[in-house]
Amino acid sequence: MTNDGPPTIPVVDELGRDECLGLLAELSVGRVGLVVGDHPEILPVNYVVDGETVLFRTAVGSPLEHAAGRLVAFEVDRIDEESRTGWSVLLHGVAEDIGDAIDGVSQRLRGRTLPTWAPGARERWFHVVPDSITGRRIRRTPEDL
Amino acid sequence: MTNDGPPTIPVVDELGRDECLGLLAELSVGRVGLVVGDHPEILPVNYVVDGETVLFRTAVGSPLEHAAGRLVAFEVDRIDEESRTGWSVLLHGVAEDIGDAIDGVSQRLRGRTLPTWAPGARERWFHVVPDSITGRRIRRTPEDL
Repeated sequence: MTNDGPPTIPVVDELGRDECLGLLAELSVGRVGLVVGDHPEILPVNYVVDGETVLFRTAVGSPLEHAAGRLVAFEVDRIDEESRTGWSVLLHGVAEDIGDAIDGVSQRLRGRTLPTWAPGARERWFHVVPDSITGRRIRRTPEDL
Repeated sequence: MTNDGPPTIPVVDELGRDECLGLLAELSVGRVGLVVGDHPEILPVNYVVDGETVLFRTAVGSPLEHAAGRLVAFEVDRIDEESRTGWSVLLHGVAEDIGDAIDGVSQRLRGRTLPTWAPGARERWFHVVPDSITGRRIRRTPEDL
């Protein structure tokens, strides 16, 4: 309740890799940033963390199929509009299509439980091994500290 | 509390333009999808709705400067992890840099109040007149309806 307490000022913390991975593991909806044709696209997905990597699924025919084998951004955040605070974590990496891959790692990954909220089959599996993981948090602290 | 009530199934509703604009106006943090160099990027921003358009600001030197004059995606959502429901709205359009523009519309837009949560100056103003606005909602309904 920012309007009831003493005045506060915002502070931004850069988050380390381990903290980012811990935050990623707390949630189950993220957003994939990719290029479709000539324009950037942002598409929400259900995901699950596997070690330091991210798995998500999509339906055949989804614009997300354009992610296959290409660099994507993957963003997860939690935002509190009331207190004007929140955190976000951002990954970059190639989204490998592991839907048909017969290597042991891909087979194991496809065995992971990855609940999806929307109805319908999600037969395409993507695996992102991040090249980079960054994050930041905005918090507020009393003005006179 | 999905585990306490009767079984439910998910339903997806496509949202009309007016409903999307109404939802956009409720929140103040969105995500810009753009291309920076060779890779897609997702960057959270504070924004404000002006009519059927969106305004956001950024600092000089931010990767968001790459948005200037280019097609971007702009996404806003509200997600309830507990009930596995939520909505998302997605815009596409060119992000016009109106920071120095002296036309009347740009001057009026720069007069809008656009609070930013993070500290520091945000001197670059961008204005997106959407080419498209789409949205969808995932809700859950009792299984036996």
